[in-house]
Amino acid sequence: LALYQVILAYDGSDFSGFQRMPKARTVQGVVETALQQLGWQERTILAAGRTDAGVHASGQVVAFSLEWKASLGKLQSALNANLPRDVAVSAVSEAKPNFHPRYDATARRYRYRIICQEWRDPLRERYAWRVWSEFDLDLMQTAAQYLAGKHDFAAFGTPPRSGGSTIRTVYQAGWKAEGLEMDFDILADAFLYHMVRHLVGVQVKIGQGKLPPDFLLKLLNGGAKPPMQSLAPPQGLTLVEVVYPA
Amino acid sequence: LALYQVILAYDGSDFSGFQRMPKARTVQGVVETALQQLGWQERTILAAGRTDAGVHASGQVVAFSLEWKASLGKLQSALNANLPRDVAVSAVSEAKPNFHPRYDATARRYRYRIICQEWRDPLRERYAWRVWSEFDLDLMQTAAQYLAGKHDFAAFGTPPRSGGSTIRTVYQAGWKAEGLEMDFDILADAFLYHMVRHLVGVQVKIGQGKLPPDFLLKLLNGGAKPPMQSLAPPQGLTLVEVVYPA
Repeated sequence: LALYQVILAYDGSDFSGFQRMPKARTVQGVVETALQQLGWQERTILAAGRTDAGVHASGQVVAFSLEWKASLGKLQSALNANLPRDVAVSAVSEAKPNFHPRYDATARRYRYRIICQEWRDPLRERYAWRVWSEFDLDLMQTAAQYLAGKHDFAAFGTPPRSGGSTIRTVYQAGWKAEGLEMDFDILADAFLYHMVRHLVGVQVKIGQGKLPPDFLLKLLNGGAKPPMQSLAPPQGLTLVEVVYPA
Repeated sequence: LALYQVILAYDGSDFSGFQRMPKARTVQGVVETALQQLGWQERTILAAGRTDAGVHASGQVVAFSLEWKASLGKLQSALNANLPRDVAVSAVSEAKPNFHPRYDATARRYRYRIICQEWRDPLRERYAWRVWSEFDLDLMQTAAQYLAGKHDFAAFGTPPRSGGSTIRTVYQAGWKAEGLEMDFDILADAFLYHMVRHLVGVQVKIGQGKLPPDFLLKLLNGGAKPPMQSLAPPQGLTLVEVVYPA
């Protein structure tokens, strides 16, 4: 029985989130079913993070113990053959003993994509939030610059465990425009529940002139209450990478 | 009763193509149903081109006569409210009398997207063809350069009507790489059935070294037979634009 570490990509549109639930289609559920077809008999796989319903991943990391006598490449092929089309294993490696994809991670990177246009866009809205009215990306870029560093993000989400710390360290955050698409990229040691979606929702309000850029700074310093309806929808969000010590 | 001209975008994944068919979900079908809810009673809408099952569009053009007393903006809103999520009207205008979206078009632009990687990619494969083994894009670029001009494309597809001309004029054709994605962009006066998908399939074989770049030239001059299995799959293809005289 060896411990394996796997990078997963999935289109979250048709999943009720990552975490296994009875009677719901979840990413954890289909991965465990795929593993069971290879003789896996453990109780649960471990994952770096539990993405919400509708949230995508290109770099989710999971780990499991398995008796497997063929090569790593064959394990990847076998898993992909057993997984549905909207989930895939993009890499497999043997993990160090006691590896835990969540507790060993030193950082996570998320991307949130928005598009700015008036009319529905069937070719983009599966992976982006369409925002209308128009907004000023420069204002959002200004706001994003306040994020780097160690802050209390209590205004932007809840910790995984009730009463847990709401302090997180953001290593990098900023917006990049490419044609119609504007991507918010953020790298942090860890994230609160809904944190990226609230950060994006508040920044869009800033870009639309409904809030000043330094309102974000006030939220970080606890001097303001978060605005209502600032949760950006799930389909724009992708878990891009989970970082481990080299 | 005025004649309207509409630009349509759709995700072709869940459609049995554009053209209305009994008992199948088609783009024409859902657009006509949406129009009927606005009192439209004609027999059929007109379209610039009939895309195949699984093919997408960001710039399909359709036309219809309708009695509509409110503004063009309200017509667009009303249509979008009646259309399913995977189809949208991105522009509405009043057409010149006798406008025909197919016969009046002077050019069409298609884009075909491929990605080159070994493993399934759930976040890209809805809108791209994943090609493996590796290929050399420079060889494909060389082949694409042969396409510009007036040629007999009989080796690459069939005309809309049996016995019709297979001569078409390509105004522009080439590949552009952006990260993992490689886009083939082609502008021509008109296209044969399956023409873009065959052109891409042959070019990928050229890129993989299975055919020399000038094999495409031989196909254009009638000096070679098209290779088997050179039809690229539908999901990489998007009808991007239909051009009309100014």
